[in-house]
Amino acid sequence: MHARTASRTNSKWALSRPNCWTGARHLQGNVAILPKAFAFDFFRFCHLNQKACPLIGVTEIGNPALESLGHKIDIRTDVSRYNIYTDGKLTEQASDISSYWSEDFVAFVLGCSFSFEAALIQRDIPLKHIIARQTVAMYRSNIPTVAAGPFDGNYVVSMRPLSGHNAALASAITKDFPLGHGIPIHIGAPNLIGIDSIESPDWGDPIEIAADEIPVFWACGVTPQVAIENAKPPICITHAPGHMLITDLQSSSII
Amino acid sequence: MHARTASRTNSKWALSRPNCWTGARHLQGNVAILPKAFAFDFFRFCHLNQKACPLIGVTEIGNPALESLGHKIDIRTDVSRYNIYTDGKLTEQASDISSYWSEDFVAFVLGCSFSFEAALIQRDIPLKHIIARQTVAMYRSNIPTVAAGPFDGNYVVSMRPLSGHNAALASAITKDFPLGHGIPIHIGAPNLIGIDSIESPDWGDPIEIAADEIPVFWACGVTPQVAIENAKPPICITHAPGHMLITDLQSSSII
Repeated sequence: MHARTASRTNSKWALSRPNCWTGARHLQGNVAILPKAFAFDFFRFCHLNQKACPLIGVTEIGNPALESLGHKIDIRTDVSRYNIYTDGKLTEQASDISSYWSEDFVAFVLGCSFSFEAALIQRDIPLKHIIARQTVAMYRSNIPTVAAGPFDGNYVVSMRPLSGHNAALASAITKDFPLGHGIPIHIGAPNLIGIDSIESPDWGDPIEIAADEIPVFWACGVTPQVAIENAKPPICITHAPGHMLITDLQSSSII
Repeated sequence: MHARTASRTNSKWALSRPNCWTGARHLQGNVAILPKAFAFDFFRFCHLNQKACPLIGVTEIGNPALESLGHKIDIRTDVSRYNIYTDGKLTEQASDISSYWSEDFVAFVLGCSFSFEAALIQRDIPLKHIIARQTVAMYRSNIPTVAAGPFDGNYVVSMRPLSGHNAALASAITKDFPLGHGIPIHIGAPNLIGIDSIESPDWGDPIEIAADEIPVFWACGVTPQVAIENAKPPICITHAPGHMLITDLQSSSII
């Protein structure tokens, strides 16, 4: 039963397509499950780097329920594809992690860009990667996160090419989506944030920046994944990219 | 050295007057220091009840610095008056807690109403308790918080009488102050949120509601103090009421 996931894919390992837009009305979240010994530091990491890690839910230690996000959520089964990391390395994928679950585990759910992208589209701001049915371009920046215990690393950013006016409009609109990465972290010259090759994203699909467009960068939910890789916990389970948890909350319920 | 506190009082035990308005440009915070064994659950309590407990800073375990709030903050000395609770009961006050500090302690700093009150005043919304130099009226409501481990209890709310138009305006303005309790939790009939006697606040000074005014209720930073009393940790240290931590951040720096 994966009633909470809006789409699935059979692609193995590869970055799959995002949850389809039938889920866009509901707040969706990235998932990171960590052992208790890492939970306090990761909680702090999320708090200190909220633009990349907007926390929308945390379980009790050992309890897979998330009442604050949905009445019957079971974080062991309600994501359609999980990535399992051992010592910071991706070692396995699964569609149910009940057999991996431990009384020692804490699950964190972090907001993602779906909610603010829906708001931009509603305001007629075209998002070219969605029109092209591609995955947004993501890059390693040189903007440092604030470290918390073993969790550290630079921000990963997503980039959307927008007209100059829409760049301003998108900044104002996304201010109201602090649970969806909030306002852009940078607008304009990629090299000023350590991106040498805008044509070659580190994740996702390349996208053209037209002559009348400017690249607009938002903090990205891959940031905590990089921090987890750096922290090398003995085990960590995340959603597979594109297979976010779909909550019962409305994506606009941010106040 | 209490360079970070804007005012002091010699009153002992009694609820003293709030930090004076010379500190209003800086983000101020309520302080709660707890042993490590209670830290994860209190972190969750804050996350689950953000209107009452808007978290603005958390220390590392055992480290009294708070770099994210100010360059040289030492949480053991930078509050001018501390309350020390033993098993949930106030047992002592101190102006320096260095001798109480333990490698086991975690300090939490929570946003308070100062920043949004300053914004309301700037918009010419009169706040009668400030004009009268009184402490805002606070009440125990029947609105339940979401429990986290041993932390539980109903919301404590502060009440400001406003004109009908200003009640709407204040709601819109405080939307942009999620670190200062955000939008009102209730407007109008006190009995609908379990307050039987609006004339007799549980904390602070009584205040008259004029015929052309309506009571406007915000979640209040006393809520976590009640939750801590209910949790009965062996030790907990807080700021004394009115003696908040003054951070280096601007109170408007919420985005």
